[in-house]
Amino acid sequence: MPIYSAPVQDIQFVLHDLLEADDSEIPGYEELSREFTAAVLGEAGKLATEVLAPLNTVGDKQGCRLENGTVHTPEGFGEAFEEIRQGGWNGLDLPEEFGGQGLPYLLGTAVGEIMVSANMALNMYQGLTHGAINTLLAHGSNDQKATYLPKMVSLEWTGTMNLTEPHCGTDLGLIRTKAEPRDDGSYAVTGQKIFISAGDHDMAQNVIHLVLAKAPGGGAGTKGISLFLVPKFMVNADGTLGPRNAVNVGKIEEKMGIHGNATCVMDYDGATGYLVGELHKGMRAMFTMMNEARLGVGLQGYAQAEAAWQNARTYARDRLQGRAATGAQNPDGPADPIIVHPDVRRMLLDQKSFVEGARAFTFWGAQLIDRANRKDDAEAEGMISLLTPVIKGFLTDKGFDSTVLAQQVFGGHGYIEEWGMSQFARDARIAMIYEGANGIQALDLVGRKLPQDGGRHMIVFFEMVKTFIKENETDGTLEADFLDPLKKASKDLQAAGMFFMETGMKDPDSALSGSYDFMQLFGHVCLGLMWARMAKAATEALAHGAGDAKFYRTKLATGRYYMARQLPATSMHLARIQSGAGPVMSLDAVSF
Amino acid sequence: MPIYSAPVQDIQFVLHDLLEADDSEIPGYEELSREFTAAVLGEAGKLATEVLAPLNTVGDKQGCRLENGTVHTPEGFGEAFEEIRQGGWNGLDLPEEFGGQGLPYLLGTAVGEIMVSANMALNMYQGLTHGAINTLLAHGSNDQKATYLPKMVSLEWTGTMNLTEPHCGTDLGLIRTKAEPRDDGSYAVTGQKIFISAGDHDMAQNVIHLVLAKAPGGGAGTKGISLFLVPKFMVNADGTLGPRNAVNVGKIEEKMGIHGNATCVMDYDGATGYLVGELHKGMRAMFTMMNEARLGVGLQGYAQAEAAWQNARTYARDRLQGRAATGAQNPDGPADPIIVHPDVRRMLLDQKSFVEGARAFTFWGAQLIDRANRKDDAEAEGMISLLTPVIKGFLTDKGFDSTVLAQQVFGGHGYIEEWGMSQFARDARIAMIYEGANGIQALDLVGRKLPQDGGRHMIVFFEMVKTFIKENETDGTLEADFLDPLKKASKDLQAAGMFFMETGMKDPDSALSGSYDFMQLFGHVCLGLMWARMAKAATEALAHGAGDAKFYRTKLATGRYYMARQLPATSMHLARIQSGAGPVMSLDAVSF
Repeated sequence: MPIYSAPVQDIQFVLHDLLEADDSEIPGYEELSREFTAAVLGEAGKLATEVLAPLNTVGDKQGCRLENGTVHTPEGFGEAFEEIRQGGWNGLDLPEEFGGQGLPYLLGTAVGEIMVSANMALNMYQGLTHGAINTLLAHGSNDQKATYLPKMVSLEWTGTMNLTEPHCGTDLGLIRTKAEPRDDGSYAVTGQKIFISAGDHDMAQNVIHLVLAKAPGGGAGTKGISLFLVPKFMVNADGTLGPRNAVNVGKIEEKMGIHGNATCVMDYDGATGYLVGELHKGMRAMFTMMNEARLGVGLQGYAQAEAAWQNARTYARDRLQGRAATGAQNPDGPADPIIVHPDVRRMLLDQKSFVEGARAFTFWGAQLIDRANRKDDAEAEGMISLLTPVIKGFLTDKGFDSTVLAQQVFGGHGYIEEWGMSQFARDARIAMIYEGANGIQALDLVGRKLPQDGGRHMIVFFEMVKTFIKENETDGTLEADFLDPLKKASKDLQAAGMFFMETGMKDPDSALSGSYDFMQLFGHVCLGLMWARMAKAATEALAHGAGDAKFYRTKLATGRYYMARQLPATSMHLARIQSGAGPVMSLDAVSF
Repeated sequence: MPIYSAPVQDIQFVLHDLLEADDSEIPGYEELSREFTAAVLGEAGKLATEVLAPLNTVGDKQGCRLENGTVHTPEGFGEAFEEIRQGGWNGLDLPEEFGGQGLPYLLGTAVGEIMVSANMALNMYQGLTHGAINTLLAHGSNDQKATYLPKMVSLEWTGTMNLTEPHCGTDLGLIRTKAEPRDDGSYAVTGQKIFISAGDHDMAQNVIHLVLAKAPGGGAGTKGISLFLVPKFMVNADGTLGPRNAVNVGKIEEKMGIHGNATCVMDYDGATGYLVGELHKGMRAMFTMMNEARLGVGLQGYAQAEAAWQNARTYARDRLQGRAATGAQNPDGPADPIIVHPDVRRMLLDQKSFVEGARAFTFWGAQLIDRANRKDDAEAEGMISLLTPVIKGFLTDKGFDSTVLAQQVFGGHGYIEEWGMSQFARDARIAMIYEGANGIQALDLVGRKLPQDGGRHMIVFFEMVKTFIKENETDGTLEADFLDPLKKASKDLQAAGMFFMETGMKDPDSALSGSYDFMQLFGHVCLGLMWARMAKAATEALAHGAGDAKFYRTKLATGRYYMARQLPATSMHLARIQSGAGPVMSLDAVSF
């Protein structure tokens, strides 16, 4: 069975050494002392190692089953969910008004990483609920908030998001689910939704569905869409549960992975729904919390990579095959551990340098969200809007690749299910698809986020990189290993942006043909920036004689690996972008 | 259910326009007229589309099961295997002396692609048999050949290769399976082998295992290893089957994919075995046919990509989502087919340009093997030895990536099992691992093949590229779109080789740290060379007014895409290689 233990030291390094969370001017951050985060992360880690992770393969093997209209989750999931509930984990970063603890989203993100690494399928029941809560917080009426939020924050009830229909996912303007107004102010919701994660299960008393549907009088396309709250069980005025609503699980999908999470076809047959937010403004309501939702999926990408990597590292230290080219390292054994082989190290360091960079990038994003929400900081809001598609797209792509690499370290043992490495890859694969497929993230990045506010946020990003480089050029070691590669990568990114500006006016296909490579290029620059900053933090910690010198030296070596061996990808992406629309658009559809 | 139809036109383009198979001086190639290959490929395609492909998802869903010591294959596999047997497909490229048709390996490879695309798991029963036959052809005694080969060529009996044990795969020197000589000249084989593909099944009367084991008197490590033939059922002097031998299936592994193929733990408990080839020379015997076996796995990589790509292309033409940025392409429909979107085209063209380049590369390799075997051409033998790890490693890596891209085109529908896209990715994944994990291929390439015969074959390769460029520089279009990128990529490869020469003498880890990137770099140059040659062939066909002008123009456009958007990867790989051993080797094992 795969192992997992929470990387508390590394998480704390990012929170405190890099992001200086305990020294931040963001309201709520004053709570984030090193002692406090150590305690919270330690508890989360204990739960993850002892309860959640052991159920990960159970969930994969058993999956969910639909019996008499109810979804049954794998053995042990119910008890584990109860522990999550009892621990108050769901409310960590939710308002105290509704039973939460009101702590920063940054801390919620750090805890989330641990939960997702341990058991992504189980965590999704909670994650979807979180998304639904945030949507209700932003758009629900006071009555709705009072009725639903306390139970959802406490996880007595869970939530879902219903967007996709069989014939449309990305293009939501095509949805057919209808909402007919009734005299009592409620709506009768009718239609079929598919791919509904955590659509039903046996771990909570009620499921609160947020459903996109078309009510009469809206325009065509996405303009006519409204958002409705449809409970599985009706809620009486006193808060107790009434009869079943007319919403049913049509079937559970068979999937490549995340078997422990029920992906449901939901049939609405005149189900009672309540309008959330304004009529015909459903798209806006659903996507308000998009930055957080997408950051959460980006997190899934690297959190699966973290779990897979921990196992690959252990295997590489234990498995004896062959001898080091430079002489036996384990002369008394029958062979050396495979970690002596350069190509095994390459695979391990690709994973390690990605995961640690991705963690920093994601936490930085979470801090920006806190800054935007808790300080009304428009600059932070703009920056996280720009970075969100990169966090989602780049980290899920590379996270998946990283799980595939971890599998590869195991050779044939990585392909059989016994060791659990296949599951990490199969589970991680979904993150590249849902919450907007990665190609859509690239489109969002290049088509909307880049030009947003006159391109201002991209300029701010470049300024930030430039300033960081300028401020630290006096440090010779930092300069050669970190700043020079970052400068080069950032220049590639600027050249790509310039290419879009020059050609995009005349031909939108030119920018769109390079959008995916731009997202990758941008992702590398972001991780390069994170690594340069982490290198600075590690260097300073070493200079101040910090406790665990080995940790900081390892951090520097890992960063050097990323800069030397991953960052050169930027020139390839730039070359692809600069090849323009010609190679992509020249064939007509029938010639493919 | 996924579709599949054999790409006969494209296969014929490679066979005839590119490799001029019907005009070759290689013995046996005189049979390969366009009419003849069309007939053979057409028949293979019919079998693939009508019989094999429809069973692909059946095999995935049902898998194999072990009951009372016998492996049962999925429903329909037995009947399909009988059709393969009746069609004489297994003997296509095997000696007439043993019931085969003696046709070139090149044609066998072309047919093999079709069978693998349609149903890889089923094809493996035949593929492993082919490998065992080739080993017996090269090393078996005349008696062994007479007893076993006719039944194996006809597929009445199938074969396996037994190398791996629980504690060793790559490092075969560690194997523990023992062979004790008996008075009658046979051996008692005892030990456990794992990951034995097609280890047992219910589709043939007998299974002939080729087993590596240690007989007394051999040295330590791989020197002490011999090769033994161990039949499932003993064979009487008259060729009829006798009692069961003491070899049993311990269990069937649960795997990520290729569920239709039984991956067995084989327990040998004093089983009767017969020495194949010389005592203590088993490693050499087992690896004699390595070039063919590894080419066969490289083929699996792109053949799965081909099948996946056919489905992605169809889906992209059918699925309506969004509108083209340059104006509606399907104004009467609710939305445009997603093939109008540049990023969907990027995904499709990445697949198409890879698969077609990979086909050319693999077939060229098969032609080199024919040249080596049928003409005793040492130059061809040296070249295919050099290229084999590239064919295996590069094509399986990129083939898997390509199936993941195909899955991505389907969005959420690619993640659920219903559409079959997950299976292509799960099945393709194994090809990166077995027959020598891809890191081992890179090691073989850089550690053995590059320096082989004083580096002569690499020099011949560079000369070939240079000559081709020189000979065709007069063609302006070819030069800009194909020759210039090829020249640049080839220079990157030369620079990488130079770096290894300069640093490898002092520090073996320096070359080994870059071995994987070298394999990728080399792969891109090979596909670049293939595309340049195909572009030349297509240009000539167009100049001669060949029939299907659209096919040749599409070929040119696809090639331009590869050169513009894939070949730039070479500079990234070079940069990684040139970063040397430092970033890879600096951490000690405990610091990971």
